[in-house]
Amino acid sequence: MAEPATATQAAAPVVALLKDELDIVIPTIRNLDFLEMWRPFFQPYHLIIVQDGDPSKTIKVPEGFDYELYNRNDINRILGPKASCISFKDSACRCFGYMVSKKKYIFTIDDDCFVAKDPSGKAINALEQHIKNLLSPSTPFFFNTLYDPFREGANFVRGYPFSLREGVPTAASHGLWLNIPDYDAPTQLVKPLERNTRYVDVVLTIPKGTLFPMCGMNLAFNRELIGPAMYFGLMGDGQPIGRYDDMWAGWCTKVICDHLGLGVKTGLPYIFHSKASNPFVNLRKEYKGIYWQEEIIPFFQQAVLPKDCTTVQKCYIELAKQVKEKLSKVDPYFDNLADAMVTWIEAWDELNPTGPVPNGKAA
Amino acid sequence: MAEPATATQAAAPVVALLKDELDIVIPTIRNLDFLEMWRPFFQPYHLIIVQDGDPSKTIKVPEGFDYELYNRNDINRILGPKASCISFKDSACRCFGYMVSKKKYIFTIDDDCFVAKDPSGKAINALEQHIKNLLSPSTPFFFNTLYDPFREGANFVRGYPFSLREGVPTAASHGLWLNIPDYDAPTQLVKPLERNTRYVDVVLTIPKGTLFPMCGMNLAFNRELIGPAMYFGLMGDGQPIGRYDDMWAGWCTKVICDHLGLGVKTGLPYIFHSKASNPFVNLRKEYKGIYWQEEIIPFFQQAVLPKDCTTVQKCYIELAKQVKEKLSKVDPYFDNLADAMVTWIEAWDELNPTGPVPNGKAA
Repeated sequence: MAEPATATQAAAPVVALLKDELDIVIPTIRNLDFLEMWRPFFQPYHLIIVQDGDPSKTIKVPEGFDYELYNRNDINRILGPKASCISFKDSACRCFGYMVSKKKYIFTIDDDCFVAKDPSGKAINALEQHIKNLLSPSTPFFFNTLYDPFREGANFVRGYPFSLREGVPTAASHGLWLNIPDYDAPTQLVKPLERNTRYVDVVLTIPKGTLFPMCGMNLAFNRELIGPAMYFGLMGDGQPIGRYDDMWAGWCTKVICDHLGLGVKTGLPYIFHSKASNPFVNLRKEYKGIYWQEEIIPFFQQAVLPKDCTTVQKCYIELAKQVKEKLSKVDPYFDNLADAMVTWIEAWDELNPTGPVPNGKAA
Repeated sequence: MAEPATATQAAAPVVALLKDELDIVIPTIRNLDFLEMWRPFFQPYHLIIVQDGDPSKTIKVPEGFDYELYNRNDINRILGPKASCISFKDSACRCFGYMVSKKKYIFTIDDDCFVAKDPSGKAINALEQHIKNLLSPSTPFFFNTLYDPFREGANFVRGYPFSLREGVPTAASHGLWLNIPDYDAPTQLVKPLERNTRYVDVVLTIPKGTLFPMCGMNLAFNRELIGPAMYFGLMGDGQPIGRYDDMWAGWCTKVICDHLGLGVKTGLPYIFHSKASNPFVNLRKEYKGIYWQEEIIPFFQQAVLPKDCTTVQKCYIELAKQVKEKLSKVDPYFDNLADAMVTWIEAWDELNPTGPVPNGKAA
């Protein structure tokens, strides 16, 4: 597991599940050579590439992929003044791709993520595992000690209430990373050589009421169920922090999933994360977040959404209100962020005029 | 993994961690031949054997083991009228062993559990892994996506609050089973051939507020931290149910751990569970429990312990009171069980007169 799979290993024929129902969203500032390795798995799908940074630069996409590409000029043109809610010079810009997609499912991946191998040496089709995770129910109300009861060879164990065995719809599937682990800058600095080599053959539902650090590197979700909550916040250019885009989305998403009775899974699939980002740069981006999260996380742990918040949009607007009320005292940044959360929902509804999503079910 | 390890595979020299601080508790009705395979791992430790059923029967213990054995006559003699709280003709009787132990840690295992092999074919020293789990902190307040951050090669991931990285003391370590999974009778009947062959290389903390089905087959705990909550209830002879002893202990334990700020881990180590019990017999024992658990679990999910419950004993007495108030309407059985819970604590304190355990710390 110390090396990614080769393109040959990844070249087995693939059944493209949900081919017409899923978009792959990739934020990038460079040519997408990494797609060569993913070709057998990704080529059947439509890609939405969100180009970050200088819009005059040309991003090369390997031949044969079906894609649309948006740069900053496109985002400004499409959203007008509402483009202010989309981050610039930060991979948080990826959430623009979620908004313009018309598909039911999204898979998003970073361009430094390669195909990982399972312990038998077989190339892992990450997308296929995400789809399995999303299409099978979650079990957030009671922990199953054999983990995901819907996986082959598993089930609910003795003592699991039968009334809860139907599960709930799965809104998000959070995949992991072999090789370079997703550490914060202080941990990167202290453990520069640590690599994640432990392949843990598990998928599990994160229980209701429990928050987790959602990483955006290898993430899939049901856009119809939870899309409007997948806002990656204000990061990067002109903002006081970075590297908290996915964390923010994860906290908001989990609170809303818990409220609406939706599930979030974590575990398989693994990708191979090739390159640690610069810990000194990361420290500059993160240091305020490291401090602020000590107040943000209790805020989300205690957040209660009223019963009349029956759609993701309503939940999200309510959360924005609570952010303004309770986090603005931490830093004026949260005042801006709360406003951007509202702008995000307005922009989402403009681009997705089919109406709000009632009670976790697609309209 | 389809077969247990052989005695030769298990025979590697072992460092006996916590040798003078841990008892192994085994409930049984038969000769303990299964200990032969465990010899390299268990022989350094003291065994407490709780003989169930006919006390006139002689239980043979392989030579060289240091043990004490209690049969029903011993239990009656030691506890007097309070012996009524210890089940008869059910492995729930094992909790008598927890009570008479004078050690800090307990490991309990069923006599149909053998040494499992890890994917490399190496015999798994289950006890050693339990000890590692118990000696390292738990993280119940926030989910770490790389699982137990205290395992070698792991850590807290980006976005994990630094204020929570110290963790909390671990009260219990719940191990799993390869081969025969711990299924209820209906699942046994529906899937008679299902075997658990998935070795999942993970230990994780069950988050605060989440209940789980605790199996008593392969379980370790810190007796000083949580011992008095490990009561296995009224099962078997003269009782309307069986096979809910460990479940009952698990629900009570988890609620009390959550209240006192203690952790419960599940996952590694695996044992090899050799033989499925008879599903028809199990169905007879379980059917009331299967129905009742639909009310019991919501009861425990909603149970709140008052702030002045600062010891395990106080918590347990309070839970007994709530059981009487809220579950007696389900069946008169719970009235008796609530009384037995109080008797259990009285007996515990009689045998362990060093005083109650204040706020999760040993007196």
